[in-house]
Amino acid sequence: MENFTYFNPTKIEFGLDKEQSIGRHLAEHGIKQVLLCYGSDRIKRDGLFHVVRTSLSEQGINLVECGGIVSNPVVSKVREAIALSRTHGVDAILSVGGGSVLDSAKAIAAGVCYEGDVWDLFIGKASIQSALPVFAILTLAATGSEMNAYAVVTNEDTKEKLFIGNTHLYPKVSIINPARMQSVSRDYLVYSAADVFAHLIDVYFTASMQPTLLSRLIESLINTVIETTETLLANPADLQARGEFAWSATLALNGLTFSGASGFSYPNHAIEHALSALFNVPHGAGLSVVVPAWMKWYHSRNPVQFERFAQNVFHVHSAEQGIADLKNWFDKIGTPTRLLQLGIQETDLPAIVDNALTNARAFGIADMYTRDVVTTILRNAL
Amino acid sequence: MENFTYFNPTKIEFGLDKEQSIGRHLAEHGIKQVLLCYGSDRIKRDGLFHVVRTSLSEQGINLVECGGIVSNPVVSKVREAIALSRTHGVDAILSVGGGSVLDSAKAIAAGVCYEGDVWDLFIGKASIQSALPVFAILTLAATGSEMNAYAVVTNEDTKEKLFIGNTHLYPKVSIINPARMQSVSRDYLVYSAADVFAHLIDVYFTASMQPTLLSRLIESLINTVIETTETLLANPADLQARGEFAWSATLALNGLTFSGASGFSYPNHAIEHALSALFNVPHGAGLSVVVPAWMKWYHSRNPVQFERFAQNVFHVHSAEQGIADLKNWFDKIGTPTRLLQLGIQETDLPAIVDNALTNARAFGIADMYTRDVVTTILRNAL
Repeated sequence: MENFTYFNPTKIEFGLDKEQSIGRHLAEHGIKQVLLCYGSDRIKRDGLFHVVRTSLSEQGINLVECGGIVSNPVVSKVREAIALSRTHGVDAILSVGGGSVLDSAKAIAAGVCYEGDVWDLFIGKASIQSALPVFAILTLAATGSEMNAYAVVTNEDTKEKLFIGNTHLYPKVSIINPARMQSVSRDYLVYSAADVFAHLIDVYFTASMQPTLLSRLIESLINTVIETTETLLANPADLQARGEFAWSATLALNGLTFSGASGFSYPNHAIEHALSALFNVPHGAGLSVVVPAWMKWYHSRNPVQFERFAQNVFHVHSAEQGIADLKNWFDKIGTPTRLLQLGIQETDLPAIVDNALTNARAFGIADMYTRDVVTTILRNAL
Repeated sequence: MENFTYFNPTKIEFGLDKEQSIGRHLAEHGIKQVLLCYGSDRIKRDGLFHVVRTSLSEQGINLVECGGIVSNPVVSKVREAIALSRTHGVDAILSVGGGSVLDSAKAIAAGVCYEGDVWDLFIGKASIQSALPVFAILTLAATGSEMNAYAVVTNEDTKEKLFIGNTHLYPKVSIINPARMQSVSRDYLVYSAADVFAHLIDVYFTASMQPTLLSRLIESLINTVIETTETLLANPADLQARGEFAWSATLALNGLTFSGASGFSYPNHAIEHALSALFNVPHGAGLSVVVPAWMKWYHSRNPVQFERFAQNVFHVHSAEQGIADLKNWFDKIGTPTRLLQLGIQETDLPAIVDNALTNARAFGIADMYTRDVVTTILRNAL
C-alpha cells in the first residue's frame, strides 16, 4: 500500500424520495439564495423541478434558475452562470441533473469566488482558494462527480476539455434517487456504463503498485456494472439494478478504488476528451471506442493484471480474450467501439492526436503518450 | 438497495511516518491542550510517544497524559479521564493505541460534554449532544473505530459491555501507519482477523436485503483478510500485507459494507460481548469461538448466502463445508474456536446467556435471540 490521504466529506442521501428533503439540507448549511443549475426542461416536465422548488420554498430559500447546460458542458455557460450568481448574490449552487450539470455547478462555485476568468483555474494560471457550497440531485449515474472533488469542462473556443480538482469542490450533500434515473435513455445508460468502466479500469491496469484488495474491489464494481446494465436493458424499471448501478458509479470514482495504489493515470480519459472536445460525441460513447483500442496497445505492459481481468470478469484465460470479450460486450449493449460509428474518419486523426497530447500533458502522462503512441491507439479504433 | 445516508467525515492519513504530522492536524483544528490516551508503556519504549510529543510540541500544543487503558476498556477509567480532562481544560482527545484506547477516547470526548455520568449515554438515559474532537494514531488494526462513530465500553460493576454511536464521535483525523503495527503479537493478529471477519459476516449473512454489490465488496475484504493474515503469520515484517490487512479492517466497519443493505444486525458481537464482559477474554478470541457456533445454528435461515460464502471464500459447494472450513481456518491460524479454550465451562452458560440477552436487547435483536436460542448457540461452542 502506498501512503495516501482519504478525506471525503460529501454526505450521500441515497434512495426513494430523498430529493424532497433538499430544502432542509440547504437550510442546515444556512443557505438563503441558491443558483439552481439544470440541463433541458425535462426536469420541469417530469415534476422534479416542482419538488425541488417546493422543498426550497418551505425553507424560505430563494432560487435563481440557470437552465440549458449541455452535455460536454462549456465554459461560456459557466461564465454566464458566474455572472448571474454575482448579480443575485447566491450563496450556494444546486445541480439538478447528471455529471455535466454538476461539473458546471462546481466550476461556477469556484469561479464565483475567483476574481479572474474561471478558465484560469483549468489551465493552472490560478488555483482554487475557495468555492461556494455545492449541492446535487443526480438524475444520471455515470461520472461519480456526486462524491468527488473534480469537474470537467470544455472551452469551445480553444477546443480544450480540461479538469479542475480541489477539496472545496466536494458536494456538501448529493441526493441519489434511482427512481429519478428510470427515464434515462437506453443510449445514455450504455454510455454511462462505459464511463464507469473506464474510471475503474484506468486505475486497475495502469497502477504501478496496485494492492490486491483494490483489484478485488474494482472487480466487484466492474461485475456489478456488467450485470446491472444487462438487467436494466432488459427491464428499465428494475429499481434494485438501477440502485446498484448508481452506487457502483459513485464508488468508482470517490477515492475507494485508488487509495493505496500508486503510479496510476487516466489515459483513456485523456484520449477520449479529445473526441468529445472536437466532435461533441457523448463522453461514454467516446470511451467505449477508446478503451478496447487502448487495451490492445497497452496489455503487454501489464500482462498479469490483464490475465487477472480476463479471468475474474469474463472467466477466460488470456489477456487477448478478455479484451475481445469486453469489446464484444460493448457491442452487445450497443455502445460504439469504432471511431467510424462516431462519424470520425482517418483524416480526422491528426487533429485528435494534437488535442489528446494537450490532455496527456494535463494528466501528467505525456512521457508515455507521445504522438506515435496516441496515433497507434486511435488507429486501433478505426 | 435500501435508502441510506452515507456521511463519513473522518480524514484518514495512511502510511509510513504519518504520525509525525499529528501536531499539524491538531493545530489545523485549533487545538491547544490535548488529553493523550494510551494503554501500556509500550508506546514509550518503542518511541511512538516521543514522536507524538515532539510533533505536538512543535505546534505549541500541551498534552495531558492518560495511560493505562486496558483491553475491554472499562467505564471507571473513562470517568477518571473525564475528570482529568475537566481539570486541565483539554479541548481534544488523542488516542494512541488500538480500538480499546480509541473507544475510551470517544467515550471521554462525549462524557466531558455531558453533565451527568457518562454511563447514562450507554444505557440510553441521555443522548450525545456534542463531544470534544477526537484524533487517533492506530497501533492495532481490528475494530474499525478509526473511521466510524461507535465505541464499546464495559461497566465492570454491572458487567455490561455496551456501545454508543453518534455523528459527533467520528475521529477528525485517524493516522494508520502499518509499520507501527509490526510489533503486534501473533495472538492479537489472529484475534484481530476474527474481529474483522465478524464485522463483515454479521452484515453479509443477516441482512434481509443484501445487494449483490455489497456481497461482492464484503467477499473482497474477507478474502484479503484471510490472505494477509496468513502472509503476516509467515512473515510479520511484510508491510504490504500489514497495510492491506489494516485498510481492510477500516473498510469493514466504516459504512461501505452496509450502505444499501437492510435488516442486518450484529448477533455475534451481541453474544461475544457477554464473554468479554464476564471473563475478560480478548474480544476477537471470543468472536472466533462464537462465529462458527452461530453459523451452525443460523445457516438454514439464509442458505443461499451461506452457499455463496462457501463458494466465493473457500471454493466449496455446501454451506456446511463453508462453515467447517472457516472453523478450520480459525484453528489453523490459532484463534480459539471452543469455549473451553477460553477457560469457560458448561456451568458458566446461564450467566453468559443472561448477559447476552441484555446485549440482544441493546442490539435490537431480542425477538430472535431468546434464552433458548442463545443457549443453543453457546452449546455449539462447548
